[in-house]
Amino acid sequence: MAEASAKNGHGAGNGTPTDKARIWGGIDLGGTKIEAVVVDARGEVLGRARHPTPAAGGPGEVVKELYGTLGEAAQAAGVEPAKLAGVGVGAPGSVDANSGTLAHTSNVAGGWDAPYPLASDLRDLVGGGKVALGNDVQVAVAAEYKLGAGRNYRSVLGVWWGTGVGGGLVLNGVPWRGQGSAGEIGHMVVKPDGARCGCGRRGCLEAYAGRACMERKARAEAKRGEKTLLFDIMREKKRTRLSSSVWARALKEKDPLATWLIERAIGMMGVAIASVINLLDVEAVVIGGGLGSRLAPMYLGAIEDAMRPHLFTTERKPAMHIAELGDLSGAIGAALLAGPPM
Amino acid sequence: MAEASAKNGHGAGNGTPTDKARIWGGIDLGGTKIEAVVVDARGEVLGRARHPTPAAGGPGEVVKELYGTLGEAAQAAGVEPAKLAGVGVGAPGSVDANSGTLAHTSNVAGGWDAPYPLASDLRDLVGGGKVALGNDVQVAVAAEYKLGAGRNYRSVLGVWWGTGVGGGLVLNGVPWRGQGSAGEIGHMVVKPDGARCGCGRRGCLEAYAGRACMERKARAEAKRGEKTLLFDIMREKKRTRLSSSVWARALKEKDPLATWLIERAIGMMGVAIASVINLLDVEAVVIGGGLGSRLAPMYLGAIEDAMRPHLFTTERKPAMHIAELGDLSGAIGAALLAGPPM
Repeated sequence: MAEASAKNGHGAGNGTPTDKARIWGGIDLGGTKIEAVVVDARGEVLGRARHPTPAAGGPGEVVKELYGTLGEAAQAAGVEPAKLAGVGVGAPGSVDANSGTLAHTSNVAGGWDAPYPLASDLRDLVGGGKVALGNDVQVAVAAEYKLGAGRNYRSVLGVWWGTGVGGGLVLNGVPWRGQGSAGEIGHMVVKPDGARCGCGRRGCLEAYAGRACMERKARAEAKRGEKTLLFDIMREKKRTRLSSSVWARALKEKDPLATWLIERAIGMMGVAIASVINLLDVEAVVIGGGLGSRLAPMYLGAIEDAMRPHLFTTERKPAMHIAELGDLSGAIGAALLAGPPM
Repeated sequence: MAEASAKNGHGAGNGTPTDKARIWGGIDLGGTKIEAVVVDARGEVLGRARHPTPAAGGPGEVVKELYGTLGEAAQAAGVEPAKLAGVGVGAPGSVDANSGTLAHTSNVAGGWDAPYPLASDLRDLVGGGKVALGNDVQVAVAAEYKLGAGRNYRSVLGVWWGTGVGGGLVLNGVPWRGQGSAGEIGHMVVKPDGARCGCGRRGCLEAYAGRACMERKARAEAKRGEKTLLFDIMREKKRTRLSSSVWARALKEKDPLATWLIERAIGMMGVAIASVINLLDVEAVVIGGGLGSRLAPMYLGAIEDAMRPHLFTTERKPAMHIAELGDLSGAIGAALLAGPPM
């Protein structure tokens, strides 16, 4: 088996495309961490690694770190990176899959605006194999569709609930990207002239449900004298932000402000998801992302309840699921982008 | 040419499928009128007819009238209905294309709830040719996509602005129906706990922009003492409802209530359409329907203005168009459903 030989590091060769193993690399480039996996033709994870995202230094530093993380994952899988048949990268910001560039990455390594040729840089580093670039949320949703919570459906809406609220669509088995920017469920309007969103607009779903916007609101309310445990828990956990685990703990302790903000978020989540169902009539919804993975097990029923008053077709309701691939959905989805023939 | 021979009524035969001309029928079954066309393989209209929808009598009366209208259109095209290679019907309500049934038609001939086998009834009447059933708005949007305002695009959102607000999607050249009920842009939520919609829910786009809901609101405001010309114009035109032409006239005369209601409708239209663009990133939007066809030429820019503050991707904006096939988009779209190989 090609997989086994690669896994054991057999075979010489100089990494030319003809010499590739049936093994693929996937990298999830996030604002705080880089997650890499090496997978076989069935999407099975053979090795993984995680590095922090460089805090500064721009694209050059990011590329080095991507390669370092992937190298470690390859090592864990017992294969040289040059042997990988292809590598996929899921990234936030504006991905141009055709030109292999990444632009507008405000959260990564200090951020950069101009399109950077990430794919060709990585192509040099991984020995000339195929390099594919995709949107981080879209590839994560594709992974859940193929291997995770969405595998029994043909059409799926993924809602990635984290710092922001991202989305991805698979329609009749095909990821739907529109002209390249589809999936922004976080910027669907749930309340005209509503709360200010991180994107500068008003009334977006993300303005109510995104972790960053919820934190901003919590700070404003605390400043106004509202009592809350959120910031005590944050300090106790030695965090500087209201991370998912801070929210989870505050909710567990029935902190009123945390509870109110999460219930408000879930109410708006119900509005937006129901609107998507009315528009697209997909079979299933998969909730993922940092906050989603943490909170959805407790709140999936509440999200469904929040959707119900807004669903137009009452004869059936979409199946609701929590993402199953956890932290690795992005990296696995990125690897799938590079081409395991599934 | 088969078309010409059919057009001139040549050829005998008993209407068996082997004897069919390359000519198709299309019927748009609406709440007030039935519109029928006969088209050739390019979707060119060879004949058309219009009858009022029976006010009562249920499915039996409707089928008779569908046949009558189609027969008249066929006569205008110089062909016997039995010669048609196929017939398509676009209908409001719950269409089950596979079983050929139509259910939940509150607006048609007194309305009926149980699924009625419309397709098989028509199959008998048109000599055993193919009969296809589709949702009225979806087929109209498909017609605009293939032959009208959407013909230069691969992905189109159609917004059918009339008594209600319907929608249709063509994604990468394929009509998107979801599990059968997709396209309900009119029931996307634009304001949680907002105005009451005809569907019984609150805050739907249709609650603000649908003609029926706008009329209800206008009557309530007039009753409350708000001055308006709307009902004077209605009586003058010998109507019992605020038809599209009544609205158009009141707007022309700068009636404040009519203007306020239409501007409110357009504001919410902007919210909903922008949300769809953020989610799906389609190339173009086509505005049709009774009110849309009448008002969009005047208000297309206003709809765009209302969308702008909510669009997430600012680098490009969707192309905005008015439906080009007018009253016939539904009937032509229905005919296309039956199979001209386009």
